[in-house]
Amino acid sequence: MRLFNKVAIVGTGLIGGSLAQAIKNKRLCSQVMGVSRHRKNLIWAKRHGIIDLACADIRGIKDADLVILATPVETIVKLAPQISKIVRKDCVVTDVGSTKVEIVKKLNKLFKHYVGSHPIAGSEKRGIRNSNPCLFAGSLCLLTPTKDTDPVSLRSIRKMWEALGAKVVLVSPQSHDEILSVVSHLPHIVSFALMNSVPQSYFKFSTPSLKELTRIAGSDIEVWKDIVFSNRKNILKTLVHFQKCLDQLKSALKYNDVVGLTRFLKESKSKRLSLR
Amino acid sequence: MRLFNKVAIVGTGLIGGSLAQAIKNKRLCSQVMGVSRHRKNLIWAKRHGIIDLACADIRGIKDADLVILATPVETIVKLAPQISKIVRKDCVVTDVGSTKVEIVKKLNKLFKHYVGSHPIAGSEKRGIRNSNPCLFAGSLCLLTPTKDTDPVSLRSIRKMWEALGAKVVLVSPQSHDEILSVVSHLPHIVSFALMNSVPQSYFKFSTPSLKELTRIAGSDIEVWKDIVFSNRKNILKTLVHFQKCLDQLKSALKYNDVVGLTRFLKESKSKRLSLR
Repeated sequence: MRLFNKVAIVGTGLIGGSLAQAIKNKRLCSQVMGVSRHRKNLIWAKRHGIIDLACADIRGIKDADLVILATPVETIVKLAPQISKIVRKDCVVTDVGSTKVEIVKKLNKLFKHYVGSHPIAGSEKRGIRNSNPCLFAGSLCLLTPTKDTDPVSLRSIRKMWEALGAKVVLVSPQSHDEILSVVSHLPHIVSFALMNSVPQSYFKFSTPSLKELTRIAGSDIEVWKDIVFSNRKNILKTLVHFQKCLDQLKSALKYNDVVGLTRFLKESKSKRLSLR
Repeated sequence: MRLFNKVAIVGTGLIGGSLAQAIKNKRLCSQVMGVSRHRKNLIWAKRHGIIDLACADIRGIKDADLVILATPVETIVKLAPQISKIVRKDCVVTDVGSTKVEIVKKLNKLFKHYVGSHPIAGSEKRGIRNSNPCLFAGSLCLLTPTKDTDPVSLRSIRKMWEALGAKVVLVSPQSHDEILSVVSHLPHIVSFALMNSVPQSYFKFSTPSLKELTRIAGSDIEVWKDIVFSNRKNILKTLVHFQKCLDQLKSALKYNDVVGLTRFLKESKSKRLSLR
C-alpha cells in the first residue's frame, strides 16, 4: 500500500531508523530519505539498506511529501521554523516527540498539514544500530489532532501507523502530556532516582528486582532531559501524587499498621494483575 | 556429592519446591521430604517427582539431618520452637527468609546447628507449580553466620548452595538486613507505590516501562507483608533517602535547573551502566 512518494526522516536514531526500515518493509512509499548531521550513521544506514537516500543537508527534504521529525523534543521545536521554509506547501508533516503540547502548538502554526504522533515504543538502547523494523508492531501510537488539523493528513498518518502494526488512539495534546507524565515519565523518573539512591558499595549485592527497576535509568540523557523539561508541570503533579503513595506506605510501616499495609499491597497487586 | 541423608523442606512454595528439585538433581542427599499444610500441593509435588516423601504433619521431620525452613518470615519464627522439639540434636537447620536479624536471633537460641541463608532468587510468581531447579544457578546466596554458628554446619550449608550453582557471600544478619532494604525491599516498595499511583483509567495507555517497573507489584502479599514488617526500621531509613533523591529531581524541575537535572540523569545512567 503506497501512501506517500518520498518520505524524509529527520533524525535517524533508534526511532527514526526503525521507522525507515518499517516503512520500506511495508512499501508505504517509493523512497525513504534519512537526514542527519551524523554522516557516519547515514553512510552506515544507506549501506545496510535502512534508507534509500542519505542527506546531511536539511534542504534535501524539499521535494518530500511526508516529513517525519524524529529528533529529541527540543530539536524538533528548534528545527521546525527552518523546515517550514523548505518543504512543499502540500507536504504532510508529523513528529514522534514524547511530549505534545509545546510541539503541536508550534508546528500547527508552521505547517498546514501537520499531525502530531507519539509511538509508545522504544528501548533504553539508542542509535540507528539498535533500530528494529518491528518496533511498532503491536504497540500503541497516540495521535494528537486539534481543531486545526487537516482531516486528510490525519487519515494518511493514521493509515501509516496502522500499516506498521500500531494501534492508533486519538487524544488531545493536553491529555497526551498528562497521561504520559503518569504512564511513562513517572516510571523513568522513579528509575533514575532509585538508581541514584543505591550506594555503589552495594552493587555487588545487586538483585534481579533492582536491575529490572533501573534498566531504563540507562536511557538516553539528551532525550530524557528534553522530555522531562517540556512536560515539567505535569510531571511535578504526578511526582507529588506518587510521593503521597509512598508516604501512605511509610506511615503504615512507622505505626506498625498491618491492616493498612496489607490493604495497600493487595490494591497494588490487584491493579498490576489487571494491567495488560 | 552427598552432603546429607534426609533433607526436610518445610514450606513447599516457589523457593521450597525449587530447592527440592535442585537438591535432588544434584544428588546432594538420599531423600527429600516436603512438609506442608497444603496436601494438594504435596500430592502434586510427589507425583511430579519434585519430592521423594510428602508429609502434612510437621513431626515427620524427626529423623532429617537437614531441615530447611522455606515459609514466609513470620511463619519461620512461629514454627521454629515447635520444630526444635522434634528434630534430632545433630540436625543442621537453615532457612531461606528474606530478612535475617529477627530469625537468626531466635533460631540461634533454638538450634545448635543453625545457619541463616538467603538465596537472592525468586519470581513474582508463587507456588510449587512455578518452581524451577535452576533458580539458584548463577544467583547470589547470602549466609549470615554469627559468633555462635557451628563452623561445620556453616561449611555444609555453604557447600550445598555452591553445589546448586549459587555464589555464596557471608555477611552479618545486621548488614544483611541493611543491604537488602536497599537492593531488594526498596525496589519492591517503589513498585507497589508506583502501581497504586497510576489511575486505572490510564491502564489502556500502559507503556513497556510502566509494565516493567510494576511487574514485582504482583508479588506474593503474605511474603512481602512479613518482609516489610520484619525489616521496617531499615526500610524506613532507605525510603527517606529515596525520597530525598526524588526531591532533588523535583526541585531541579521546579526551578528549571537544566544543569542540575542533567547532572542527576548522568550520574544515574553511569551508575546503571556499572551495575552488573
